[in-house]
Amino acid sequence: MPQGVPATVPDDGLTTRQRRNRPLVVVHTGDGKGKSTAAFGLALRGWNQGFDIGVFQFVKSAKWRIGEQTVLERLGRLHEETGEGGPVTWHKMGAGWSWSRKGGTEDDHASAAAEGWDEIKRALAEERHDLYVMDEFTYPMKWGWVDVDDVVTALVERPGRQHVVITGRNADPRLVEAADLVTEMGKVKHPMDVGQKGQRGIEW
Amino acid sequence: MPQGVPATVPDDGLTTRQRRNRPLVVVHTGDGKGKSTAAFGLALRGWNQGFDIGVFQFVKSAKWRIGEQTVLERLGRLHEETGEGGPVTWHKMGAGWSWSRKGGTEDDHASAAAEGWDEIKRALAEERHDLYVMDEFTYPMKWGWVDVDDVVTALVERPGRQHVVITGRNADPRLVEAADLVTEMGKVKHPMDVGQKGQRGIEW
Repeated sequence: MPQGVPATVPDDGLTTRQRRNRPLVVVHTGDGKGKSTAAFGLALRGWNQGFDIGVFQFVKSAKWRIGEQTVLERLGRLHEETGEGGPVTWHKMGAGWSWSRKGGTEDDHASAAAEGWDEIKRALAEERHDLYVMDEFTYPMKWGWVDVDDVVTALVERPGRQHVVITGRNADPRLVEAADLVTEMGKVKHPMDVGQKGQRGIEW
Repeated sequence: MPQGVPATVPDDGLTTRQRRNRPLVVVHTGDGKGKSTAAFGLALRGWNQGFDIGVFQFVKSAKWRIGEQTVLERLGRLHEETGEGGPVTWHKMGAGWSWSRKGGTEDDHASAAAEGWDEIKRALAEERHDLYVMDEFTYPMKWGWVDVDDVVTALVERPGRQHVVITGRNADPRLVEAADLVTEMGKVKHPMDVGQKGQRGIEW
């Protein structure tokens, strides 16, 4: 990973320290694996620094991500018990609600996603967390359930020192433009291409 | 992420269950961020499934990855105390040794990397772990300190059910060929491009 001297130093009137400490909007997009996994890895790192972690998971199905949820919530309890790390709050946006569009109508999904985003906006305005993981949040934007310009405005204008990580395929160009750090996870090879399905400890 | 029905089912004589449970070699490569972070995210997921986790970190500098190391070792102690999750062992290949090539000669680095790989081979032969994270392991291969064909042979012939995740830029084509799952983390945008340096909770 790049380290050391920046390629250019902008004429923005900030000191190196101020620039260094500017809170980030991070986007993990692309068709490959690792977008959410790396976001939860960042949460791990933030927890260790004592960050207050808020996860807002636009869930695909009740089964997904249970591993990360279990461990991060466990780390949150460890914080309560021992003071190590930071607090962790895990929100599933629309309980029992599924990306698969099975069960419920599309209107239900759209309104659940919109309500989820409203909750995130309230959290940002109140500076509730140091690090927000908005997992699979590109999809409600892509599907028009959440307004992209509204998201960008809320991110750009968020107060204080709040880091945001957004994951999902097909990140909108306006979101990419507003972000500080964007990684495209590209699929080179996937076991499913040769008939292998997901498995314990790797996919969940 | 892809889920559900595989695109093709190979004529390999395996049942779906056998194929599904085949242990994986995973490679995270490319110039973007998230390669190691996603690998440690996988370790988190594996820990939750009770996997024995072995991290073999070909360190860049003593400072790097301290966050993940602290948390994963903490989870390892939690396993010892409560039985939750699985055990965690963290090896820095070449104590005090640095990727930066500052301090020590190149020969020192090369022999430390070669010794590190020998230790990994012994671990694989003895089936010591369920999940191996070989962090930044592409570099000793790229620099000729570890023989790529020897790595590929050891991975292909490893016994039992051992998952392997290898991270780093410039993965050798032979490693990509031998791997089951390869993700290329591509840099779309990085804060350093606009003069921002690494910061607490994001980079470490």
